[in-house]
Amino acid sequence: MTKVIYPGSFDPVTKGHLDIIKRSSKIMEQVTVAVLENPRKIATYSIEERVKMLKMVTEPYPNVTVDYYKGLLIEYAQNNNINIVIKGLRAMSDFEFVFQMALVNQKLSPSMETLFMMTNNKYSFLSSSIVKEIACLGGDIRSLVPPEVHNIIIAKYQS
Amino acid sequence: MTKVIYPGSFDPVTKGHLDIIKRSSKIMEQVTVAVLENPRKIATYSIEERVKMLKMVTEPYPNVTVDYYKGLLIEYAQNNNINIVIKGLRAMSDFEFVFQMALVNQKLSPSMETLFMMTNNKYSFLSSSIVKEIACLGGDIRSLVPPEVHNIIIAKYQS
Amino acid sequence: MTKVIYPGSFDPVTKGHLDIIKRSSKIMEQVTVAVLENPRKIATYSIEERVKMLKMVTEPYPNVTVDYYKGLLIEYAQNNNINIVIKGLRAMSDFEFVFQMALVNQKLSPSMETLFMMTNNKYSFLSSSIVKEIACLGGDIRSLVPPEVHNIIIAKYQS
Amino acid sequence: MTKVIYPGSFDPVTKGHLDIIKRSSKIMEQVTVAVLENPRKIATYSIEERVKMLKMVTEPYPNVTVDYYKGLLIEYAQNNNINIVIKGLRAMSDFEFVFQMALVNQKLSPSMETLFMMTNNKYSFLSSSIVKEIACLGGDIRSLVPPEVHNIIIAKYQS
Amino acid sequence: MTKVIYPGSFDPVTKGHLDIIKRSSKIMEQVTVAVLENPRKIATYSIEERVKMLKMVTEPYPNVTVDYYKGLLIEYAQNNNINIVIKGLRAMSDFEFVFQMALVNQKLSPSMETLFMMTNNKYSFLSSSIVKEIACLGGDIRSLVPPEVHNIIIAKYQS
Amino acid sequence: MTKVIYPGSFDPVTKGHLDIIKRSSKIMEQVTVAVLENPRKIATYSIEERVKMLKMVTEPYPNVTVDYYKGLLIEYAQNNNINIVIKGLRAMSDFEFVFQMALVNQKLSPSMETLFMMTNNKYSFLSSSIVKEIACLGGDIRSLVPPEVHNIIIAKYQS
Repeated sequence: MTKVIYPGSFDPVTKGHLDIIKRSSKIMEQVTVAVLENPRKIATYSIEERVKMLKMVTEPYPNVTVDYYKGLLIEYAQNNNINIVIKGLRAMSDFEFVFQMALVNQKLSPSMETLFMMTNNKYSFLSSSIVKEIACLGGDIRSLVPPEVHNIIIAKYQS
Repeated sequence: MTKVIYPGSFDPVTKGHLDIIKRSSKIMEQVTVAVLENPRKIATYSIEERVKMLKMVTEPYPNVTVDYYKGLLIEYAQNNNINIVIKGLRAMSDFEFVFQMALVNQKLSPSMETLFMMTNNKYSFLSSSIVKEIACLGGDIRSLVPPEVHNIIIAKYQS
Repeated sequence: MTKVIYPGSFDPVTKGHLDIIKRSSKIMEQVTVAVLENPRKIATYSIEERVKMLKMVTEPYPNVTVDYYKGLLIEYAQNNNINIVIKGLRAMSDFEFVFQMALVNQKLSPSMETLFMMTNNKYSFLSSSIVKEIACLGGDIRSLVPPEVHNIIIAKYQS
Repeated sequence: MTKVIYPGSFDPVTKGHLDIIKRSSKIMEQVTVAVLENPRKIATYSIEERVKMLKMVTEPYPNVTVDYYKGLLIEYAQNNNINIVIKGLRAMSDFEFVFQMALVNQKLSPSMETLFMMTNNKYSFLSSSIVKEIACLGGDIRSLVPPEVHNIIIAKYQS
Repeated sequence: MTKVIYPGSFDPVTKGHLDIIKRSSKIMEQVTVAVLENPRKIATYSIEERVKMLKMVTEPYPNVTVDYYKGLLIEYAQNNNINIVIKGLRAMSDFEFVFQMALVNQKLSPSMETLFMMTNNKYSFLSSSIVKEIACLGGDIRSLVPPEVHNIIIAKYQS
Repeated sequence: MTKVIYPGSFDPVTKGHLDIIKRSSKIMEQVTVAVLENPRKIATYSIEERVKMLKMVTEPYPNVTVDYYKGLLIEYAQNNNINIVIKGLRAMSDFEFVFQMALVNQKLSPSMETLFMMTNNKYSFLSSSIVKEIACLGGDIRSLVPPEVHNIIIAKYQS
């Protein structure tokens, strides 16, 4: 069975992330979306909020599960018998960090493979940071995030 | 009438910025240099200082005006009937952030166009951060900033 | 009056080219689409065919004219009192060649400015070569070229 | 069952190609290595030679098969019920062409996904062209190609 | 005599840094490894710790000396009669910052040349930050740092 | 003694090449400019013409010699006891090919080092091909090539 893990901060989930999840779920037998709980980086949304939003938007996909992890990705993956990592690549960025992490993971665990999937053209500009930047300036983010979680996301930016 | 907006932090203005302003003013009928007042990013120079320095260095160009804005660039532009944004591109950087902002602006306001102008070769290494880095280490920044504002800029770094 | 020139081989015109033409015609007063007749490069479509196809697809835009030129772009532009060149930039390619030509043109004629416009996300993969590659392999190019010229383009690939 | 296709010219197969094949065969259930027979590009090795060399070097991997195709990759893939394409990415090149082909394939067949796998660091400089360049200049290519096919490859460059 | 300076933060030294030092020492007559003491950036290891670790790992190379500096690199270099800077280039990153510094140094001191050396393929993913990231998550960094300094580095991450 | 080799096609030499030669000759003890005689690539200028032009423009630099070679660069270098290759890097191109050659050379001869020198900003757009392209279209190439060889270069393009 081909099981993959799709790790990230998802702070918050965007339409770009959901596109990768949806497409992975079509070609792979089991997809685990894994939220990194990074103690050294202050997130805008709590780990519970991020997991909850991901569960809401992945509900239609029965072979997708949502979880979170601390520490090294490869340890979480090995404990769950997963040896494929999926990462989205946006045309113009991501390369350095994403490739570096892939190489580090391969160095630490040679049997772990990272597969890259091109982000849909429509979302090539999209990131969690841009969503928060626009929400913070009072802009409309409806076209950038899944409708099910829109209200949860903007709640942080309203007073 | 072809009106353009040239937005930025200008913290402080450099010879590279002035080159873009000068060249834009030759080919466009009206150029608005717009300083972003970003409440979440601490600037070295106050919004008043940045506007003042830009007014000093753009004085020779009658079709250039200087202003500042808060919030979304596209709202400021629409309120002022401007639908062209000008951005400088340095050969080796800028791409990601500048393209991302152009795509976001187009998504939020489809009638808004961003035009890119290549930064003069002579200034392809230049940025406000580098100017401050060198000034802070006691280096000579005379070749990097317009002469009219040199003293205002270094005043922050002298005791 | 802000007059611009949009030069290229257009061998043949694609939906990506047409997107740049349409958007330029909205923000500039006069757009000249100029087909390069390059004696050292064998084109698939004759200069007459390329001009004819461009005239067909730009018919709805009254401020767009189509022409062709031999020799240096800057000479053609100067003879027609145009000092702005428009070039499309696709996210991931083009940089080297397009920037090099912009720098050469500025070196040869300092008053000539090149402005870059980002190709629409939808067409970031599109080029005349890809259209011909797919047509040659018998693939359907209907989503890649303007409908008015589809038949002219595939005529070369049918027997 | 997760079936993937790994297409290419393989003119000739290198240690870099073999690394991608080996790693894909470990994480996917069925790998088809598909040699493109391109009538418009003159290959150094005939389609028969290229298929033969690939069969020799993939013999140890029971879930790898070798085949060739003409025309569009997506047609071949669909006829064989494969909807995942695997491509190797070398750190510094490949991006443009490989991403362009992925986008074109997705445009022509939305259910087809392309997954990218990073080429092993050791082979990030390696390509079929470099192998031929060095062989042609009389250099030793033993460290660049699988030992089983070394003699077949250099036979073209000896007199 | 060809004297070069290899500047950096070395916070901490990695196998990638040591590879550049070793290779430089083979082709140049004198190599000065110079640790930047940057008052505006909080380092993980003190300047004394970083110098000490560098001295330990460069002990086998008689033409390598270790030092530290404050302020502008070019001033330190000129005071020590060195006019060549060596910088490592990793395939996919570094370009922007490293080239910018090279251009600034050349602007401030035209006789100063920066020479770039490609980082060994094996270490193209390696940086001081990645070492600290992995150590912090409890991962094994033995393959990433010189053995002589491994214990000093991990001491910061143990309780 | 620090001896370096600066290899290339030099078809023809440009001001960009001369800038690299001049700067190398200041920091290295002996510089050999080596013209590649490539039997599989048709050059515009004969090997004799290219060597002659290089000798003319390097006359003022007593530690620069001009030569040509066939076959592998590393063989030529080893026969002449040179183990440093110098290559110019233009900001936006060259990376792929130049890095690939450096890696191949290191693979074939581990003691051979390649050092990269950034091309002067003024010449970052310049290449032998651009010179020939402009000369062919009747443009003025005086600012692109050393004055001593201008007449030899344009002689090919006049009738």
